[in-house]
Amino acid sequence: MDKLNMVMVDRVIKAALEEDINYFDITTDNLIGEQQTSEAIMLAKEDGVICGIGIAARVFDILDETVEFVKLKQDGDIVCKGEIIARIGGSTRAILKGERTALNIMQRLSGIATKTHGFAQRVKDYDVKIVDTRKTTPMLRFMEKYAVRCGGGYNHRYNLSHSVMLKDNHIDACGGIRQAVEMIRSKIGHTEKIEVEVRNLEEMKEALEARADIIMLDNMGIEEMKAAVELNKAATVRAVIEASGNVDESNVAVYAATGVDVISVGSLTHSFKSLDISLKL
Amino acid sequence: MDKLNMVMVDRVIKAALEEDINYFDITTDNLIGEQQTSEAIMLAKEDGVICGIGIAARVFDILDETVEFVKLKQDGDIVCKGEIIARIGGSTRAILKGERTALNIMQRLSGIATKTHGFAQRVKDYDVKIVDTRKTTPMLRFMEKYAVRCGGGYNHRYNLSHSVMLKDNHIDACGGIRQAVEMIRSKIGHTEKIEVEVRNLEEMKEALEARADIIMLDNMGIEEMKAAVELNKAATVRAVIEASGNVDESNVAVYAATGVDVISVGSLTHSFKSLDISLKL
Amino acid sequence: MDKLNMVMVDRVIKAALEEDINYFDITTDNLIGEQQTSEAIMLAKEDGVICGIGIAARVFDILDETVEFVKLKQDGDIVCKGEIIARIGGSTRAILKGERTALNIMQRLSGIATKTHGFAQRVKDYDVKIVDTRKTTPMLRFMEKYAVRCGGGYNHRYNLSHSVMLKDNHIDACGGIRQAVEMIRSKIGHTEKIEVEVRNLEEMKEALEARADIIMLDNMGIEEMKAAVELNKAATVRAVIEASGNVDESNVAVYAATGVDVISVGSLTHSFKSLDISLKL
Amino acid sequence: MDKLNMVMVDRVIKAALEEDINYFDITTDNLIGEQQTSEAIMLAKEDGVICGIGIAARVFDILDETVEFVKLKQDGDIVCKGEIIARIGGSTRAILKGERTALNIMQRLSGIATKTHGFAQRVKDYDVKIVDTRKTTPMLRFMEKYAVRCGGGYNHRYNLSHSVMLKDNHIDACGGIRQAVEMIRSKIGHTEKIEVEVRNLEEMKEALEARADIIMLDNMGIEEMKAAVELNKAATVRAVIEASGNVDESNVAVYAATGVDVISVGSLTHSFKSLDISLKL
Amino acid sequence: MDKLNMVMVDRVIKAALEEDINYFDITTDNLIGEQQTSEAIMLAKEDGVICGIGIAARVFDILDETVEFVKLKQDGDIVCKGEIIARIGGSTRAILKGERTALNIMQRLSGIATKTHGFAQRVKDYDVKIVDTRKTTPMLRFMEKYAVRCGGGYNHRYNLSHSVMLKDNHIDACGGIRQAVEMIRSKIGHTEKIEVEVRNLEEMKEALEARADIIMLDNMGIEEMKAAVELNKAATVRAVIEASGNVDESNVAVYAATGVDVISVGSLTHSFKSLDISLKL
Amino acid sequence: MDKLNMVMVDRVIKAALEEDINYFDITTDNLIGEQQTSEAIMLAKEDGVICGIGIAARVFDILDETVEFVKLKQDGDIVCKGEIIARIGGSTRAILKGERTALNIMQRLSGIATKTHGFAQRVKDYDVKIVDTRKTTPMLRFMEKYAVRCGGGYNHRYNLSHSVMLKDNHIDACGGIRQAVEMIRSKIGHTEKIEVEVRNLEEMKEALEARADIIMLDNMGIEEMKAAVELNKAATVRAVIEASGNVDESNVAVYAATGVDVISVGSLTHSFKSLDISLKL
Repeated sequence: MDKLNMVMVDRVIKAALEEDINYFDITTDNLIGEQQTSEAIMLAKEDGVICGIGIAARVFDILDETVEFVKLKQDGDIVCKGEIIARIGGSTRAILKGERTALNIMQRLSGIATKTHGFAQRVKDYDVKIVDTRKTTPMLRFMEKYAVRCGGGYNHRYNLSHSVMLKDNHIDACGGIRQAVEMIRSKIGHTEKIEVEVRNLEEMKEALEARADIIMLDNMGIEEMKAAVELNKAATVRAVIEASGNVDESNVAVYAATGVDVISVGSLTHSFKSLDISLKL
Repeated sequence: MDKLNMVMVDRVIKAALEEDINYFDITTDNLIGEQQTSEAIMLAKEDGVICGIGIAARVFDILDETVEFVKLKQDGDIVCKGEIIARIGGSTRAILKGERTALNIMQRLSGIATKTHGFAQRVKDYDVKIVDTRKTTPMLRFMEKYAVRCGGGYNHRYNLSHSVMLKDNHIDACGGIRQAVEMIRSKIGHTEKIEVEVRNLEEMKEALEARADIIMLDNMGIEEMKAAVELNKAATVRAVIEASGNVDESNVAVYAATGVDVISVGSLTHSFKSLDISLKL
Repeated sequence: MDKLNMVMVDRVIKAALEEDINYFDITTDNLIGEQQTSEAIMLAKEDGVICGIGIAARVFDILDETVEFVKLKQDGDIVCKGEIIARIGGSTRAILKGERTALNIMQRLSGIATKTHGFAQRVKDYDVKIVDTRKTTPMLRFMEKYAVRCGGGYNHRYNLSHSVMLKDNHIDACGGIRQAVEMIRSKIGHTEKIEVEVRNLEEMKEALEARADIIMLDNMGIEEMKAAVELNKAATVRAVIEASGNVDESNVAVYAATGVDVISVGSLTHSFKSLDISLKL
Repeated sequence: MDKLNMVMVDRVIKAALEEDINYFDITTDNLIGEQQTSEAIMLAKEDGVICGIGIAARVFDILDETVEFVKLKQDGDIVCKGEIIARIGGSTRAILKGERTALNIMQRLSGIATKTHGFAQRVKDYDVKIVDTRKTTPMLRFMEKYAVRCGGGYNHRYNLSHSVMLKDNHIDACGGIRQAVEMIRSKIGHTEKIEVEVRNLEEMKEALEARADIIMLDNMGIEEMKAAVELNKAATVRAVIEASGNVDESNVAVYAATGVDVISVGSLTHSFKSLDISLKL
Repeated sequence: MDKLNMVMVDRVIKAALEEDINYFDITTDNLIGEQQTSEAIMLAKEDGVICGIGIAARVFDILDETVEFVKLKQDGDIVCKGEIIARIGGSTRAILKGERTALNIMQRLSGIATKTHGFAQRVKDYDVKIVDTRKTTPMLRFMEKYAVRCGGGYNHRYNLSHSVMLKDNHIDACGGIRQAVEMIRSKIGHTEKIEVEVRNLEEMKEALEARADIIMLDNMGIEEMKAAVELNKAATVRAVIEASGNVDESNVAVYAATGVDVISVGSLTHSFKSLDISLKL
Repeated sequence: MDKLNMVMVDRVIKAALEEDINYFDITTDNLIGEQQTSEAIMLAKEDGVICGIGIAARVFDILDETVEFVKLKQDGDIVCKGEIIARIGGSTRAILKGERTALNIMQRLSGIATKTHGFAQRVKDYDVKIVDTRKTTPMLRFMEKYAVRCGGGYNHRYNLSHSVMLKDNHIDACGGIRQAVEMIRSKIGHTEKIEVEVRNLEEMKEALEARADIIMLDNMGIEEMKAAVELNKAATVRAVIEASGNVDESNVAVYAATGVDVISVGSLTHSFKSLDISLKL
């Protein structure tokens, strides 16, 4: 949890606990004594990359600060089916009431980290970065981008106010790629990079000539991507080349082999499988 | 959007817009004139069930109330690849700034509705309900449960304060299923049902004798489930029988054929694919 | 406080402290030294049932975690005039600044618990439950329903999304009680009960035939209620019978004697007297 | 609603609607068509003073801005049993979903206004003000103090940062009434008044000599109060005299007859009966 | 921090940390180990009055409760350039991530305290109070008014619901100063003072005759102010006289010499220089 | 207001109105009739650059949507003393209640825009950008950075998660500038730039060799800055050179003349004078 903003984490956990518990746990609060304690383990039920263990620990801490949560794995660790991820001891009520919230967060983040890791492994022989997109779950972007990092991926820009992305609408409004880049350059601070989305080699050339910092090849074919990479190598000032569009586990290595610098993968966060983790008392 | 609490919808949209836009859209606000307008379409790029179109409309309405949003599909409608879902007209800035937030919500919800629909179709010849679980995204449960309904599924209990669920920890703490049901019955209001989770036929019998309203067969084999259904048929007062555990598209019809009343499917909300929808100006 | 969601409790306490203290306590912060400490007692000034003592403790804990709060009574305990409920020791500033917020919450909840206890005592010889309604104070329903439980009452449904309640408008829209019950049954999950509000024996019969789970007798006369109870006894499948409307301490036992299962009492939460409790330094 | 801060009103209404509706109205949203409309009336079922009609109107406006709400009474108006307070027309769903929230607020505020009016009427022949206290419902003080004004009462200080109130703890810490008044006077701004709580005539004299702006007679007997009033009349600079403690409808006129300027009544807001108002479609 | 509402302070700090850190500190979280610790000092880089040291301490406490923060100065203390204000020890990450938020708050508040102190010193030979106005930073009024007190100033009314201020629009609407004072007096509680803004001696006389508690001389010349003070001295019941309008460090002593009781200075909070304070590891 | 996130603006305005009005305007709500209307003008009382006029318009719109607000100036426009900025017509109550909140925001932002404009004008003959810092008011950064842009300045990075800034602590932890740049480069996404803070020419060279995107000259002397600029010109790949530290209006042109690309000025937002604007009815 060290590389996340705890203030945001706490805010989300509290909202999640209000949502999942509401006014009380009608089963547990009525049947389990206030003083009863239990030992529980958090168990990996399939292989994957762990993410969110510190957040899970914080869920129980918020419910009852006397609960002991011992992490046996760290965020980013690979676990195998059957491995114990954490040991939890303390108030049975707190453990039962926090279980679903802790798992809901941790299983999603671990699912994203695991999926990212799968992509990263497939391209590990290339000098290329797997990056996420803004296709994240509303209000949980900060956690999901953290999960991408834990899985060996990198973060694309965080939001619309961070880093310029020129798409066809922007370019049309300015009268061309060169004009758009020049206009935006005159308006932004020195910490912002300019990315241009191009759909063919003609636009690629224009973007290079306009000295875009990053050029995104939008849904290009493999051969066209290779040509774009060659154009870039030949340029006076090279751009960072990003491939985007319909990347999946089966084709990511082919994309990487084109020589692009970055491959952005929307499905890392928009379509993933929660990692199967269970909590057993 | 009619069957959702708009106050909650608005709260989520505003938080999502703060997250995705932050202080301004550095590209669009700098390059697109305040008065510029555009026409856009929302397009299905694969087959599926639509959910969240009213929420998407509300995203643009919050950004700029003069934007026109014409729904060509309603929540719950099946769309085919290539169909237009909505037409949007108005401020180019508003359309570009709301695009990702609207799609992030709508693609997720449509993904859930589509997945639910797939399950529901597979069991449509049986008298069985596909229901969701509490394995939802933190803070978005109200939307995700709505998506399940749009896809032809039903909602399990909303949270821990709604409807009793007796698991082994509760049962152990009370000394047995009968004792647990009796104790909880003495403490709850008359609008709450009591569900008991059982792992074998012995427990099934105990739950029936205790007059549980709902009995959940937890990770039982198919033959054991059939036997449980028979036990129920033979009971003086029948319970609702819920099957749970590792249900997927390939086996759900087998589960349904056992004669259970309800099949709960965690993956409806914990592991789904966003429906591919795009917005084109 | 164990049977309440602490996250919600803390949120309310913080809002209440912002409201009651605002930017500082102009009297106490200016005149009482930061290091000054005091001993205080919380005293019952009339007989009643205590509720909210854990919340009161939490008020002082939030203001100053070094304040000691010793509970001499627990929520649900009956106290007599003159009894000490709690001893508080620590920062004089914290005690004076938290006093009114702690008492405002605790006196209201104890008032509700006391009133509920009065109703429950009057019907203790009958097999009937006193239940609350949705006529609660905005934003404090979770606390007020807890107070009802502490006073020996039970909770009716929590909100509009929990448990079906068919009133005349719903019935008219569907064309009759049977049709309404059938239609709603086809749309809801298996954890929801269906309650039908009836105004006469004719409707009572229809509701029974429709297999409503709960039938509310709305403002019926005593003899009519008795007849309704008889109808229910004769039914193949019995419903839970709820009496509602203008119940007060003077007539609740008469209602109970009709044989109904549940009596709902709006005044438990809409019209109550705060229990007189004072805090003395 | 004109003499209330609408931003605060809206915030409370939205929180109340989230609490009462939660994710949807399982009955109404499932059975009533989106296009169905109804006419409803808001009806007084007993005599009283109306308060909160503008807030009720706002509840429906927030749910559906096309709902028409026609006020037939204004806040502060006296209504008789059977009188129509408002007519509401529009979406049946919105009316049914907003009904309880609107009534919960309006019945409480009207109850407070009615109770205050009762006190005010009993002392109308004296030059005395009935004022409220800080014994209000957490988070609803702004509305409840408004209800007191609508009922013909006046507001005591709003919170701890507004206007000084010297109680025995403050006085003891400073070494006496004179010292406490002098010390606080040296620390506060010129818009703050200083009130001193006194328990006998000796303290009354000290407070007068210290030039307290307001002197509260705390739980004094009637004769002692009269003597205190005489002391005040004889003073060089007169204070405002406030009577406090165990005032009820039966004795408030006796208090008023002592010649005090102000009578504060905690029960206006801590113990009241909701006014019986119903909404009929 | 003792004379501030900690609940409000914590709320602001958390919002500020979300704003300044957002999802993580891309530099520090990536390069500084979680276990690394540092010692830091907070250093005055110019002379001034310290304010907000307790808030700064709380910033680090919220980020990491193991950080040690030793205050060498207290709020209200005068510091000289080069003096150490506090020593901070603990997690390097927490210190670096909290630095800007802590300084942003503390430098602003110390700037206000320092400016106020400058005004207070210039009039220390007169019996006059320097007071602030409502010209404060949105959402930070409670902190800024605290800073004014730390600098030796006093607080004017906190907001529009606290203490009456009759301006020309109010007076015109009522038909004159006397009528306005009488009308408002009939509507307000006994803890509120009435202030009247006057622009000339004629209005001054009317306000005195109307028995205004406070009279504000709005943008009057020095001689006119002196005459107003004389009118007040001659009155049966004296008002508090407040001078307002274009006061600055160069002329405040001249204002004070007129004999007014209070001088309100908007620039204390609307135009100030942050005190130069740095944090060095 | 077009280049600001309206959702954030509305949130701040509502919080500001709750702070400034609290429960009602005791003067205006009591004396001004609900139907009374007025015309008002917003007037510049000194020369400056306007910023926040759309926000001011929104303040009145939130209070009463029937208020007409006609902008005679746009954000970024230069106004002269005596010029009318806007005309406001409608409910007198709304105008009086919104006045201070609207002015508090607009005067601060216009003050920042005006100050920024002053800096920008002084360096207009150089190819240099004036940029802000993170030394902004807690919770108002998004508005203040907008004001800097309106005044002709540019925005430095928005927060700690956006763009890398390597300071001495980071460099020391990594063992040198080169190592720090390499390590961070291996961890960040492709949209982030790397800025290195250097204190002398030796570090400047190291940063250039490490291929830092931006090099900040921290508190360097003028001659040293010139030498740094020369080093940069001679480099294979040039960095953006930022001057920082104790820049004010008197010396900014000297800084600009050194040839640096960017000058960051903390005082733009930490120490400014509100522009004198008044609202006259």
